[in-house]
Amino acid sequence: MGNYVIGIDLGGTNLKAGLVDRDGKIHQRLSIKTENNADPQTISNQIFYLIDEIINVGAGLKPAPTSIIGVGLGSPGLVDKKGETILFSPNLPLWRNIPIKRMVSERFSIPCVLENDANAAAWGEKWVGAGKEADSLVMLTLGTGIGGGIVINKKLWRGVNNVAAEIGHMVIQMDGPKCSCGNYGCIEAYASATAMVRRFKELLKSGAPSSLKDAGDVTAKMINDAAFQGDRASLDIIKETGHYLGVALVNIMHVLNPEVIVLTGGMIGSGDLLMDPIKQVIKEKAFEASAKETKIVFSQLGNDAGIIGAAGCLLNELEISV
Amino acid sequence: MGNYVIGIDLGGTNLKAGLVDRDGKIHQRLSIKTENNADPQTISNQIFYLIDEIINVGAGLKPAPTSIIGVGLGSPGLVDKKGETILFSPNLPLWRNIPIKRMVSERFSIPCVLENDANAAAWGEKWVGAGKEADSLVMLTLGTGIGGGIVINKKLWRGVNNVAAEIGHMVIQMDGPKCSCGNYGCIEAYASATAMVRRFKELLKSGAPSSLKDAGDVTAKMINDAAFQGDRASLDIIKETGHYLGVALVNIMHVLNPEVIVLTGGMIGSGDLLMDPIKQVIKEKAFEASAKETKIVFSQLGNDAGIIGAAGCLLNELEISV
Repeated sequence: MGNYVIGIDLGGTNLKAGLVDRDGKIHQRLSIKTENNADPQTISNQIFYLIDEIINVGAGLKPAPTSIIGVGLGSPGLVDKKGETILFSPNLPLWRNIPIKRMVSERFSIPCVLENDANAAAWGEKWVGAGKEADSLVMLTLGTGIGGGIVINKKLWRGVNNVAAEIGHMVIQMDGPKCSCGNYGCIEAYASATAMVRRFKELLKSGAPSSLKDAGDVTAKMINDAAFQGDRASLDIIKETGHYLGVALVNIMHVLNPEVIVLTGGMIGSGDLLMDPIKQVIKEKAFEASAKETKIVFSQLGNDAGIIGAAGCLLNELEISV
Repeated sequence: MGNYVIGIDLGGTNLKAGLVDRDGKIHQRLSIKTENNADPQTISNQIFYLIDEIINVGAGLKPAPTSIIGVGLGSPGLVDKKGETILFSPNLPLWRNIPIKRMVSERFSIPCVLENDANAAAWGEKWVGAGKEADSLVMLTLGTGIGGGIVINKKLWRGVNNVAAEIGHMVIQMDGPKCSCGNYGCIEAYASATAMVRRFKELLKSGAPSSLKDAGDVTAKMINDAAFQGDRASLDIIKETGHYLGVALVNIMHVLNPEVIVLTGGMIGSGDLLMDPIKQVIKEKAFEASAKETKIVFSQLGNDAGIIGAAGCLLNELEISV
């Protein structure tokens, strides 16, 4: 058996691959741009290309191809119960009903596992990141939307249909704003980057002064930067976002009482501006035992969690089946 | 090794014991009234008395004492992480910091496990009840409050502090009514028996006609009975309760995607009047895959779940440690 796994993280804008060792360290990286509306043929060819670069061409990579154990592939969207096919992916709308696991393993004659990208990233944090020592971990990915991953008893928990950990769609206010999923008052409709920008615009409309008043198309990143410059409206909106996240995290603590909750995604760039109000709500609303013991932390692996976690899922799968 | 376990279910009004076989069948039952404000000495003496009746006196019970494997004790409140002591119990306020596990096992020289009562009941349903075939199960106990139990990968999930499955305190409306826990908008503050009675009174106050208008101190049972007699206000309030429960169940499905959700407790006496609106919300709001596959069912063991489950927890513990 070899020493390296190819971890692949398929995203709406980038397809990233890394050569990951058995300790979860990335030794080489490759990356290609992806198009949101790419057809499945193009996406799978890009995946094949990256694997081929690493295995056959080498792409300047060592070790030699023979030491590749297999491929772990993290993909957005709903993976079927057998872990073989992407059934549906909101961010890559054409990427569906693709038996990519079989396609990869047959083409390269190596084992492949397919995992939902948020699950893969959660597993990465559990394996070698912010939840390394933990038996249980819940991860929230705070970006355009809010994704999640759950580790229970040192194993990813995927649910009966592989759709567990859709934490972004937990309702915290039944009559709240409409969410992308069609329901109302999901945490995603309050605390995703998209929702934060929406609330920021509403705040400015209500007359709040801000350095971003004439900035045109405001993004979450701009709000974050302005907050660090002391912009009151931006500070208030990030604090409010932290408050909403705190409510969601207390819900998770009430239901799962995990050892660690890991926050990741673009929005954690706000650092303590986001973390302080989260911890304040937890202090006020969580059970005392839970508030004391559950660690709320930012990701340690950052954008590498997907690659590392996907590789870890392959190792996991092989250890289980061996 | 013997063939029977003594399962004990400690409640705010009754202390119940049963002789349970390895298939989860209850062969004999004993029961004593408990007082809400009973001191720990009284409660533990009552527990000892029941065990003694079964083991030593026999109380007309067969088999002989020698075939008792041990005692499983389900208690309300927070069990410490080691499963040895009740730290705190809202419904038995004086019943705290009692190392009842050790007290029982030393006194009778038999193994004893201590489990939170809702967890024990959930395990009962998993072992021989509504979730018998399931890998994962979430149970909600709908009574004065709302309790819960979670089974993941065929094991009770207790969390890092033994406070998981406090599903009743999941917030579904941040600015909702105040809950017994001090927070606002928990599902318990909408859909427990207490909350249903409160909403019913508000409805009558707003002028809605009802056969219970002059009934005095209305209870959830009375609302249920009136609903079955066709009382509009009662029907509406139960339907609304089901709607709120549906929102909570969809949250659970989003987070855990369990195979089975079991509803138990006094309020399930409303039957389809409660279940229909729950299923309607799930149809509208849950992910399609989840809505199709997660079974929403009433308890099969009813009030016996606590005794059977506590006994099952003892068997489980011994099988694990053997």
